[in-house]
Amino acid sequence: MQALLVDLIRLRMPEGPAPMHRRLYECLRSAIQEGVLVADSLLPPSRVLASELGIARNTVLAAYRQLQLEAYVGSRQGIGTRVKQLAPERTARAIAFPSGTEPYKSDALSARGTQIVAMPRASATQWSAFMPGVPDVSRFPERLWTRLRNACWRSHRSEELCYGYGGLAQLRQALSLHLTATRSVNCTPEQVLVTDGAHQAIDLITRLLGDVGDIAWMENPGYWGARAILEANGIRQVPVEVDAHGMRCLEPAAGEAPRFLFVTPSHQYPLGSVMPVQRRQELLALAHRHGSWVIEDDYDGEFRFSGNPVPAMQGLAAGSRVIYVGTFSKTLYPGLRMAYMVVPLELVASFRAAHAELYREGRLMTQATLAQFIAQGHFASHIRAMRTLYAQRREMLAHLIERRLGRDWMVRGEDEAGLHLVMRFPIPLQDTVVAREALARGIHVKALSTYFAPGTTAQQGLVLGYACVQEADMVTKFEALLSALRATDRTT
Amino acid sequence: MQALLVDLIRLRMPEGPAPMHRRLYECLRSAIQEGVLVADSLLPPSRVLASELGIARNTVLAAYRQLQLEAYVGSRQGIGTRVKQLAPERTARAIAFPSGTEPYKSDALSARGTQIVAMPRASATQWSAFMPGVPDVSRFPERLWTRLRNACWRSHRSEELCYGYGGLAQLRQALSLHLTATRSVNCTPEQVLVTDGAHQAIDLITRLLGDVGDIAWMENPGYWGARAILEANGIRQVPVEVDAHGMRCLEPAAGEAPRFLFVTPSHQYPLGSVMPVQRRQELLALAHRHGSWVIEDDYDGEFRFSGNPVPAMQGLAAGSRVIYVGTFSKTLYPGLRMAYMVVPLELVASFRAAHAELYREGRLMTQATLAQFIAQGHFASHIRAMRTLYAQRREMLAHLIERRLGRDWMVRGEDEAGLHLVMRFPIPLQDTVVAREALARGIHVKALSTYFAPGTTAQQGLVLGYACVQEADMVTKFEALLSALRATDRTT
Repeated sequence: MQALLVDLIRLRMPEGPAPMHRRLYECLRSAIQEGVLVADSLLPPSRVLASELGIARNTVLAAYRQLQLEAYVGSRQGIGTRVKQLAPERTARAIAFPSGTEPYKSDALSARGTQIVAMPRASATQWSAFMPGVPDVSRFPERLWTRLRNACWRSHRSEELCYGYGGLAQLRQALSLHLTATRSVNCTPEQVLVTDGAHQAIDLITRLLGDVGDIAWMENPGYWGARAILEANGIRQVPVEVDAHGMRCLEPAAGEAPRFLFVTPSHQYPLGSVMPVQRRQELLALAHRHGSWVIEDDYDGEFRFSGNPVPAMQGLAAGSRVIYVGTFSKTLYPGLRMAYMVVPLELVASFRAAHAELYREGRLMTQATLAQFIAQGHFASHIRAMRTLYAQRREMLAHLIERRLGRDWMVRGEDEAGLHLVMRFPIPLQDTVVAREALARGIHVKALSTYFAPGTTAQQGLVLGYACVQEADMVTKFEALLSALRATDRTT
Repeated sequence: MQALLVDLIRLRMPEGPAPMHRRLYECLRSAIQEGVLVADSLLPPSRVLASELGIARNTVLAAYRQLQLEAYVGSRQGIGTRVKQLAPERTARAIAFPSGTEPYKSDALSARGTQIVAMPRASATQWSAFMPGVPDVSRFPERLWTRLRNACWRSHRSEELCYGYGGLAQLRQALSLHLTATRSVNCTPEQVLVTDGAHQAIDLITRLLGDVGDIAWMENPGYWGARAILEANGIRQVPVEVDAHGMRCLEPAAGEAPRFLFVTPSHQYPLGSVMPVQRRQELLALAHRHGSWVIEDDYDGEFRFSGNPVPAMQGLAAGSRVIYVGTFSKTLYPGLRMAYMVVPLELVASFRAAHAELYREGRLMTQATLAQFIAQGHFASHIRAMRTLYAQRREMLAHLIERRLGRDWMVRGEDEAGLHLVMRFPIPLQDTVVAREALARGIHVKALSTYFAPGTTAQQGLVLGYACVQEADMVTKFEALLSALRATDRTT
């Protein structure tokens, strides 16, 4: 790295009549401003740089001193000179684009590209109260995982470092057994397909089974995180109202039959209802009538805190048109990027072939680690521990809401599950304003109205994640949220 | 796992008048045939299963014995009863689909889906002589990698287990420095985007910058591995002839200007030429004239064995319309699934936003490990070692070809690079037949004619990968290839 840095400095040294210490200072300053040298990089020791550039050590020290005076670098005895985190307004980009708005849209983008970035939903910040859907990653059993992973690396064959095809057999088996036993999913290992996250599963399904212009029914309010993928694949997203039993079963107009129905029957996202069997049967009958595919997104099905586990829709006798999608993002950690689908038997060969063509499967060492983790029972243990923990945190947050705001700010009941709860507003408040006020106080919440499709009547409220909030922080974070609510109330 | 298996057996036990040992045997046999119990699974100990099912131990032993007689399981003292690898014709699928052809195509697929699986190119087998493009993964410095990885895990923050956004800064910096120094790529860390493989990079580029119906110029012969992605994204692939200098620069007809040009200027794939500066300038001028984007696929640019490293097209003054794509698949190992793009500055924000929306970035621990690996100089060392090794293997294979077949079976010259070479046929032979004969002898080669677009005049020959062939195996594997050539010659 040192050698590369020195080469870089040499390449970027400006010409001109200015003294060397000045030119070196400008060279380094522009590198820092442009992000060529990022925060926490170590500059070469002055003696080394001086020797490499053929200049006096004092010259280098003078340049470093000026940078330190202007807070571009910090120097510490024994450690060296390190680039500091640059305040946003000091970057070359900020200087070039003084308005401050991030230029997402570019004339270069295609019409499709413009649609994809039109309503960005991915949050740069994840690990923060009260981000919904973020598990407590600090509780992930890292030492155990590392031990299993190291063991896989010690005993692997060369093939396992090459491309895969169809997912590691041991992982598919472990998943098949787990899903059959805990989620009442009807599947053999052959029907399990491993993907790099639920988004890839949805991408594969809509590309392989849908054409441009096909219709997808989306729960409203619902999960719009996959919106960009459906846009990219030319799938027309039709919002369908969610009532107390989940997605309503309405008969489509002629020529408007959906190709896909995206449902979260175990725990409607975000409102939380469990879809009763009768509604499931009605939707399945509709799917059979119109040749639709039901995509069952079981995003947090392991985390039910009361009552029996809710069996998957896919396991019903009429479930042959259901494609079941699950993810490890909430049970293990989101950065793992591993998920799975259970595909009807007659589609297995097509899905495997298409998956290999579009994504080139790999990561067999990670799959092997995961397979061991599940097969040895650690997955089930971890879920049990997390279920208990999340139930406690839910109780803590619900209690705070009821005591500090009132019972009418929350709906209790079926929603005793998952990593989030919904706060409703019994007084008129704009939830997007609350979210902004909360952000100013370092609190990340999601406005409930943003889960409703544009052009439909949105309810106001907040989607609050409690899983990633440590008990010791819950009260202070909640206080900050209260402050945001009060601030919004005053301005409303 | 045991408990799950027992539950599974209980669930699948057939009813009926047959004796229990027979019913248990049928239960287990069908589970094995359907792939519910995969090869190497351990059946429960007979004592345990008997107890759980409430039957006599002898009954279980009788069922296990019958399965062993029929080679479904193997039994070993002290280890237990293990499911054996089932011969393909004994699976439930083979029994159901006796023709043996994998039913890729299904009536359920959309028109787009049918196109995607129409010409599957991904090979299930990778680690075999003479698969092109497969590095010697047995030389990957695993202990070092594991050490770095464990260190990253010990010192990480919780955020690094959540979703990423834009790629880890340290990795982007390490890549930026490396590419600037070794490939003459013109970039800052900000312009580097990390993806899960080159396919994802191509997917992102074509979705974001192209609309359905846009034209892409593809080298002919060329890399068609990304064909399915371009099909899926509605991009019309126009083959453009490759001459001694790479892709020809032809003026497009009115209304037929390409939106994308896919080129491999450092080492044309598969024929091997280096694109001289003049041709590069001509193509760049065309791109500027028509608002096209040049996708420079530098798939093995590190592995030039003679002469100077070839600077990237992107680094030329006129290279502002070039998007540079590189991968770790050939320098580290394909299963790692990590690659990168260098994006023009004005597109950075759009690409980052779209990448997060479509793929939800993660794997920050892997990115951190990679960043350390590069920054500490191990990447450069590994490439140097592999370059020497591959040069030796290339020489060995070239020598064998010249001695056993003749000089006219190979073209020497610029093609002193990479992980593959091209064998030409000075006598009339059908290369697809040779490939089949080779496969029957356990040798995997790619027929050169398959790199030509359908409807264009194809040259016959073989693309042979030598990187994954150990020296000790080179002669025997080559003998087998010779045998395949002779067999084809006799039938031709």
